[in-house]
Amino acid sequence: MNGLTLAEKILSQRARREVRAGELVVVEVDQVMVVDSIAPTVIQRLAELGHPPKHPERVSLVIDHVAPAANVTVAEAQQKARAWARAAGVRVFDVGRGICHQVLVEEGLAQPGWIVLGSDSHSTTYGAVGAFGTGMGATDIALAIASGQTWLRVPESIKLTLRGPLPPGVSAKDAALEMVRRLTAEGATYMAVEIHLTDGAEALGRGARMTLANLTVEAGAKAGIVVPSGEILEQYAVPEWLYPDPDAVYAREVEIDLSTLTPRVSVPFFVDNVHEVQAVQGKKVDVVFVGTCTNGRLEDLHAVAEVLRGRRVAPGVRMLVIPASSQVLEEAAKDGTLLTLIQAGATIGTPGCGPCMGRHLGVLAPGEVCVSTSNRNFKGRMGAPDAEIYLASPRVAAASAVAGYITLPEALEANDA
Amino acid sequence: MNGLTLAEKILSQRARREVRAGELVVVEVDQVMVVDSIAPTVIQRLAELGHPPKHPERVSLVIDHVAPAANVTVAEAQQKARAWARAAGVRVFDVGRGICHQVLVEEGLAQPGWIVLGSDSHSTTYGAVGAFGTGMGATDIALAIASGQTWLRVPESIKLTLRGPLPPGVSAKDAALEMVRRLTAEGATYMAVEIHLTDGAEALGRGARMTLANLTVEAGAKAGIVVPSGEILEQYAVPEWLYPDPDAVYAREVEIDLSTLTPRVSVPFFVDNVHEVQAVQGKKVDVVFVGTCTNGRLEDLHAVAEVLRGRRVAPGVRMLVIPASSQVLEEAAKDGTLLTLIQAGATIGTPGCGPCMGRHLGVLAPGEVCVSTSNRNFKGRMGAPDAEIYLASPRVAAASAVAGYITLPEALEANDA
Repeated sequence: MNGLTLAEKILSQRARREVRAGELVVVEVDQVMVVDSIAPTVIQRLAELGHPPKHPERVSLVIDHVAPAANVTVAEAQQKARAWARAAGVRVFDVGRGICHQVLVEEGLAQPGWIVLGSDSHSTTYGAVGAFGTGMGATDIALAIASGQTWLRVPESIKLTLRGPLPPGVSAKDAALEMVRRLTAEGATYMAVEIHLTDGAEALGRGARMTLANLTVEAGAKAGIVVPSGEILEQYAVPEWLYPDPDAVYAREVEIDLSTLTPRVSVPFFVDNVHEVQAVQGKKVDVVFVGTCTNGRLEDLHAVAEVLRGRRVAPGVRMLVIPASSQVLEEAAKDGTLLTLIQAGATIGTPGCGPCMGRHLGVLAPGEVCVSTSNRNFKGRMGAPDAEIYLASPRVAAASAVAGYITLPEALEANDA
Repeated sequence: MNGLTLAEKILSQRARREVRAGELVVVEVDQVMVVDSIAPTVIQRLAELGHPPKHPERVSLVIDHVAPAANVTVAEAQQKARAWARAAGVRVFDVGRGICHQVLVEEGLAQPGWIVLGSDSHSTTYGAVGAFGTGMGATDIALAIASGQTWLRVPESIKLTLRGPLPPGVSAKDAALEMVRRLTAEGATYMAVEIHLTDGAEALGRGARMTLANLTVEAGAKAGIVVPSGEILEQYAVPEWLYPDPDAVYAREVEIDLSTLTPRVSVPFFVDNVHEVQAVQGKKVDVVFVGTCTNGRLEDLHAVAEVLRGRRVAPGVRMLVIPASSQVLEEAAKDGTLLTLIQAGATIGTPGCGPCMGRHLGVLAPGEVCVSTSNRNFKGRMGAPDAEIYLASPRVAAASAVAGYITLPEALEANDA
């Protein structure tokens, strides 16, 4: 028999037997995360099941999707979710604490080798720390809460090797967009993307790994797991068994040379419609949005501040920065980053998902063009169906805010001179 | 003939003849302010009139009521308003710049002796600097934009004398609530409240005067004008004619002794249902909201920070602080106030009106209890009809956030000890 992939290793561990791609397994779940927008259905399913949470301490409710509440219906749903959580002994991260994935990682509720289920598609993010993170619908989430277990088919894996250090000015977001381009939007459907960082790429920190794992779902992945290395080995107790075997079997192997990568942009209306920034250089923008589980971390705000320092957001452009969590907001307030952004003319939003899915806090009007650091540019994602969302790195987003059109920071420097 | 009140002086000046209470007059308007929520109707009326703005430089569009946009309808309305303003040469203060009244005062667009019309009822706020500020509906606003003039009946005046310095821990908000209690909700209907600050009360700064003038509309006032004194005389060029004559005729004279005032709270569902805080001491709160044109200024955030420093918002309480403007946000970021609030567990919202009128950013669920520094506690104002809003000063709001129930900061100190 051949060796096991990282996904097979984790699922074997939690199934208490060796399992391989294609098998149906029942596994213990280490953490279940529920967001406000799905909570009402989850709670209803649990009521139908008539089971209390098996391990309430392994469940987290995060109120982030439409927070603070944008209308009475949302407010009432959140109120009921809070009451349920309180009664069930479930942990609550309330309005303003931040985006589910960011908060769970900050709180240590995703650990190497864990299985983390979330009622949000970007739950692949937990793969950053070597967890098997995956998104599920309300019924599966309810069953996992009630039973402490879930069932799934062990996914095949794609081995994705990211080689070499990123050039200056090129970020993990650019690497992630290039990954989606290479894999295509359906290229990793129901697979685990096993990300190997080598030849300098292992220097990418936890936040960068979150960006990578986050975007794997845009290639259809069931999970995106970064093989623990670099600072993850220092920050976490990584189990000895948590590595892919050298003779593991992969459905496909893909390599990306990061050392020659250039800044990318994902052009409406598909995430895998990825180009060099130059391809859309000069496209006039109305809105620039920096935030989300993809790029709302302190390092992302630092990248934005570096571009904005001593510059101003262009007249007619609305720039909205929403820190991914209260911790990010606090750190940005402490180290002066927030002030730099405000002084450049950006405005700040309450930590949470913000306008990412078009439900409040900056919904796009017909025909508006937005450069966003988020992860989806589908038709109507942030509001009007014909609004255009260009996905880019925080650095490119900041430069575009200053110019008033899509551009690279390097082009600004030419202008400044 | 008797002398003139302050309102009569301003209206006489702008009517270019001496006018007295009861007369119908046409006056020149110095500034017209339109907010996002009313802009679509104003623009439609202007189109029907077929007139461009007479003096576009005297018109300001402020996008503050539902900003950033909470849905596509709002986003599209704001988009059209921006396009109209651009075409008409009208000044725009866009998403995140802040609340109309705060922004106009910061920008010097309300000056002593001016007539300032706003499409928002709290346009009485401009009385803080000795302007005749008043709110009007969309049709009147459109006519004023088209013609540069407006017509109105010269209001009778109530002379309100506020005597003595405020005791420590008692704020202009407490004085304003006491004013509304004394005048009653309809007691100043269509009148000008002429506010005289004496015996130490003249030390109240511009922000405090804004709070006072702001709340006069809750007694039904057409305008609330603070007789210029104190720092206003240093900050503004106050015209020589801008004082009430000693023998002016008033409909009523009211005095409030500030030196013996205690903290107040306005109890649902009427603003004039004002009591001492002790009357509702212990009432459990779900939400604390600090912000709005009434109390979202730097000094208000300072008062909150003073109470929160070294303390934490109670578990289960959501505390939302929304600076009244980008300038307030910037100053609070600069002087550490923002960090203090965040470290205490408060969250921050985008400068603007926030949840004050229940249209986004923290709408209340059924039965929820909110302590708010805003100006209206009507049934359904912030969301669910049976949600309860208690209006109080920033200091009392902060103490209630820490306790989890309505209380005074002094009661916290007893607990700390």
